[in-house]
Amino acid sequence: MTRVDDPATTSPEQARAAFRAGTVAPTSGWAPGFTQTNLIAVPRDWAYDVLLFCQRNPRPCPVLDVTDPGDTSTVLAPGADLSRDLPRYRVWRHGELAEEVEDVRGLWQENLVAFSIGCSFTFETGLRAAGVPLRHLEQGRNVPMYVTNRRCRPAGRLHGPLVVSMRPIPAGLVGEAVAISGAMPAVHGAPVHVGDPGELGIVDLGRPDFGEPVEADPGDVPVFWACGVTPQAALMASKPPFAITHSPGHMFITDRADSEYRVPVQRNE
Amino acid sequence: MTRVDDPATTSPEQARAAFRAGTVAPTSGWAPGFTQTNLIAVPRDWAYDVLLFCQRNPRPCPVLDVTDPGDTSTVLAPGADLSRDLPRYRVWRHGELAEEVEDVRGLWQENLVAFSIGCSFTFETGLRAAGVPLRHLEQGRNVPMYVTNRRCRPAGRLHGPLVVSMRPIPAGLVGEAVAISGAMPAVHGAPVHVGDPGELGIVDLGRPDFGEPVEADPGDVPVFWACGVTPQAALMASKPPFAITHSPGHMFITDRADSEYRVPVQRNE
Repeated sequence: MTRVDDPATTSPEQARAAFRAGTVAPTSGWAPGFTQTNLIAVPRDWAYDVLLFCQRNPRPCPVLDVTDPGDTSTVLAPGADLSRDLPRYRVWRHGELAEEVEDVRGLWQENLVAFSIGCSFTFETGLRAAGVPLRHLEQGRNVPMYVTNRRCRPAGRLHGPLVVSMRPIPAGLVGEAVAISGAMPAVHGAPVHVGDPGELGIVDLGRPDFGEPVEADPGDVPVFWACGVTPQAALMASKPPFAITHSPGHMFITDRADSEYRVPVQRNE
Repeated sequence: MTRVDDPATTSPEQARAAFRAGTVAPTSGWAPGFTQTNLIAVPRDWAYDVLLFCQRNPRPCPVLDVTDPGDTSTVLAPGADLSRDLPRYRVWRHGELAEEVEDVRGLWQENLVAFSIGCSFTFETGLRAAGVPLRHLEQGRNVPMYVTNRRCRPAGRLHGPLVVSMRPIPAGLVGEAVAISGAMPAVHGAPVHVGDPGELGIVDLGRPDFGEPVEADPGDVPVFWACGVTPQAALMASKPPFAITHSPGHMFITDRADSEYRVPVQRNE
């Protein structure tokens, strides 16, 4: 029951079962309509700094769940196992990438605390439903991400720059894109910047720091959202002795519908 | 410059200066339009449990700021001093109320971490602006609060019941009240329950656990919101060796406009 014919028609549970059984694939397009999350697992001694960094920088670091030490279960998907159900993991030692593996059961230490951080895939569902084109998906590429000149508020040992994702959006639809993502503050919310990349210290959109470059159509405007890579970058810069994260693009698929993270519309305005 | 003639026309800075100079008064009605917060300060050793409890129970425990250990300043009001600028404080030792004082400068230990937690006064501004009557203000009373039969998600040493505040609202305006508060998830958000108090395990609305009873008008429906007393109740039940909180109703007045905590309206729905 773990073979998947069409990722776009899988349930979250089917997707996780496939990854647990050895399927390795980027999760974009899998189980559409269900929230995917970034994974960061650190020793308990580092958990306060990570949680505080997220509290102080909620745009890039929306925390959707935190586990108890040693626990691999999460309220975001009862029955799931965070140490097995992602397609691929990265293992970090003293801030350096030590290995990339498909299962971290044997590495899940008793004191490990796992953070599930919101992901912009969640508001992409709403953008597509509203007819906003997503160039990176049209072009079959990973979304481009850039390190900016804006600093996050530090927390304990954690400090670093804001990382953003960029989507070229037709100028006439930027308002829609702002409104739709702005109603989802738990998954990055409204863009942090629209227009000139130079204002964020980005020199060349064609050379992203993570992900792949994306072609803009004529009339598109670059729109920048706070990115869930931000806390991972800050954590690695501070070199914890041990950490486990997802591999880029290989997210955890939760049982939560994207719509659960939309704030209800205020009707009297 | 610390005498206040009319609390309703003071700026947040003037209000804090008055409290610093010795004025003692409940802060309801002071500096209207500016967000007030609950204060909880605990030793660093307890800070992770408090922050995690808040992350796991965001409805009753919306964290607006966390200080560094020993620091009495806050981004919510540059220049303010959390150890002097509230009108009245409670000092707790091993979970017991030790004293109630107007200044805690001498008690602010080097390892103390202060949490500023959102307060329902913030959405009351929006309710009043929309013509929703607030019976407790009409009757000159503190809002009534009740311990419910719902348990919060525990975190480390912290566990306890959800505490709610109750406002009687005319049935025809309940929809408005839900929409307006729902658009402010950082200050408790939408009600957790509307109608029968028995469903929350509340036996008698006339006997609140905190605050004062409020009379309902004919046609009013009881509406229940998650309350910022929840984390304080959980903390005290777990008996930290030392803690400082505000005194009930004597909040910290920030420089942040209430409107900053409103999520933008999604226009395409």
